[in-house]
Amino acid sequence: MPELRKDPIIGRWVIIATERFKRPSDFVSEPAEPSPGFCPFDEGNEDRTPPEIVAYRNPDTAPNTPGWTLRVVPNKFPALEVEGVLGKRGVGIYDQMNGIGAHEVIIETPKHETTLTALSLPHIRDVLWVYRERLIDLDQDNRLNYGMVFKNVGRVAGASLEHTHSQIIVLPITPRTVAAEMHGGKVFHDYRGRCIFCDMVLQEQDSGSRVVYDGDGFLAIEPYAARFPFETWILPKEHSSRYQDITTGGAEGLARCLRTVLLKLEVLLNMPPYNYIIHTTPFDLGPVPHYHWHIEIIPRLTKVAGFEWGTGFYINPLPPETAAEHLRQTNVET
Amino acid sequence: MPELRKDPIIGRWVIIATERFKRPSDFVSEPAEPSPGFCPFDEGNEDRTPPEIVAYRNPDTAPNTPGWTLRVVPNKFPALEVEGVLGKRGVGIYDQMNGIGAHEVIIETPKHETTLTALSLPHIRDVLWVYRERLIDLDQDNRLNYGMVFKNVGRVAGASLEHTHSQIIVLPITPRTVAAEMHGGKVFHDYRGRCIFCDMVLQEQDSGSRVVYDGDGFLAIEPYAARFPFETWILPKEHSSRYQDITTGGAEGLARCLRTVLLKLEVLLNMPPYNYIIHTTPFDLGPVPHYHWHIEIIPRLTKVAGFEWGTGFYINPLPPETAAEHLRQTNVET
Repeated sequence: MPELRKDPIIGRWVIIATERFKRPSDFVSEPAEPSPGFCPFDEGNEDRTPPEIVAYRNPDTAPNTPGWTLRVVPNKFPALEVEGVLGKRGVGIYDQMNGIGAHEVIIETPKHETTLTALSLPHIRDVLWVYRERLIDLDQDNRLNYGMVFKNVGRVAGASLEHTHSQIIVLPITPRTVAAEMHGGKVFHDYRGRCIFCDMVLQEQDSGSRVVYDGDGFLAIEPYAARFPFETWILPKEHSSRYQDITTGGAEGLARCLRTVLLKLEVLLNMPPYNYIIHTTPFDLGPVPHYHWHIEIIPRLTKVAGFEWGTGFYINPLPPETAAEHLRQTNVET
Repeated sequence: MPELRKDPIIGRWVIIATERFKRPSDFVSEPAEPSPGFCPFDEGNEDRTPPEIVAYRNPDTAPNTPGWTLRVVPNKFPALEVEGVLGKRGVGIYDQMNGIGAHEVIIETPKHETTLTALSLPHIRDVLWVYRERLIDLDQDNRLNYGMVFKNVGRVAGASLEHTHSQIIVLPITPRTVAAEMHGGKVFHDYRGRCIFCDMVLQEQDSGSRVVYDGDGFLAIEPYAARFPFETWILPKEHSSRYQDITTGGAEGLARCLRTVLLKLEVLLNMPPYNYIIHTTPFDLGPVPHYHWHIEIIPRLTKVAGFEWGTGFYINPLPPETAAEHLRQTNVET
């Protein structure tokens, strides 16, 4: 059973994998680029993944056989385990609990595509829709508190398979960054009576200098205090605190916005490694006026040096206004 | 002039470099390993760095000529500029100020050594002593609030030159992580009346399972909630909140502890890329009972994936107890 351990000073939680014993030599060599050989995510290889949790498939086909367009399966090497109790306990000044949680993989297509942008808009909408479905389902588990949807593309960004896929990790605790965002949003709302993200949407549309794409229901910007070159955020233009509340129309608008932005990044930066993460509210919260879900896309172009790690303080060599201009000028078809 | 910009939601400050215009293609290709060719840090090349601020040198020699054992020079490509005013201002919901600060390089030896551990103990003590000297001097500048000493080793860890060196960045604001540590330490001290780091030192010595090295005045441990394999912290065993208060005897003990730990990491992990960062209090604070300076050493062995970025939540595939055992069993001479 993995352990969740809390740093006693700043309260940062860490998942300590205790299952697989690793030797020091395992950490010395660079992991290889995802292999283009056998792929367990390809159609026909359904028996090489754990049994599917959900699939969008032809109703005449059986689970875990071909005939699907989208499958959600448990991660074969999960960071957390579904079965068990939290078992919260102290060890002197330290706090820990069992590594209970869910870790699922969304296989976005039966074909061996290596990028989400290879899929059609309705297909991407389905991917976004199944994120919602899984979050709603996992919210039922009282032990769990936060569902994090994310995507790793490229070895540098942490991907071990090249077949386009996303992941959901569901945790018994709310991540620090999200808690800090919730707190910051609350302080602003208490003081000014508005959602700070809604204010940001309006100010960015007004200025225009950091806008990458302004589409049906969604705005893509380079954030004012971008940490990284070409860091891009996608926000719903109307206030909405929970990703799960997205409508089918909303998912269509988001699919178009996401596909456009990713295509621009792929064309301009020659298929960069990247991560995206959906930031939404913890499970135990209904809709709130002070938080606003969004997607953060982080191309992994620069090395992070010691001082960024140690301090949470970043040096960005490219002004977001310059990045936005390049992205606006990059024409793509969607 | 670079800009300091504040994320309006969580208050994270970012340095936005606006001086050098970069093209998107600058971010596409991987930076090369530090070149073993011409080195501006070697003895005899003093005219290839900005003029020295401090040097430990033979008193018969002139500044910026050979005859030194240690030089501190301004960074040739500084992230921040020394001259100017802060010029704090708002832009709608956003806050910014001029990128005022200091960025210095400590060239640790005139010989072309690629690792700190190649130096003798008295030489390493001098490196640690000049950190103190620079922090005390830079503390005089009323515009500046925090001095961060760090080291990048290897391309993966952000180094652009292989000649062993450290850096100091001095900022007008306190980094988020340090502020969070100060806050956590304060909350613990208010509640229990003790320093949480002192408690940690005692509990780690008592348990022993995460101890790497217990030496004269300093303890090296794998922290309980380690984020990374072989993440190692060095703490003074006696309470001390400010690195600048280190004594000459303390610097000797720290030199031995640091050299031992780095040698163990180098032998066990085959010269890994790594960063270290000194965490100490902001300038405007005298000695305090609730904070305890320390060094965090982070070998850069694993890739950080999307969800770590997005959430400040880490998965560590190696229990710190296992890492500590390997490091204890790695024998090195100091």
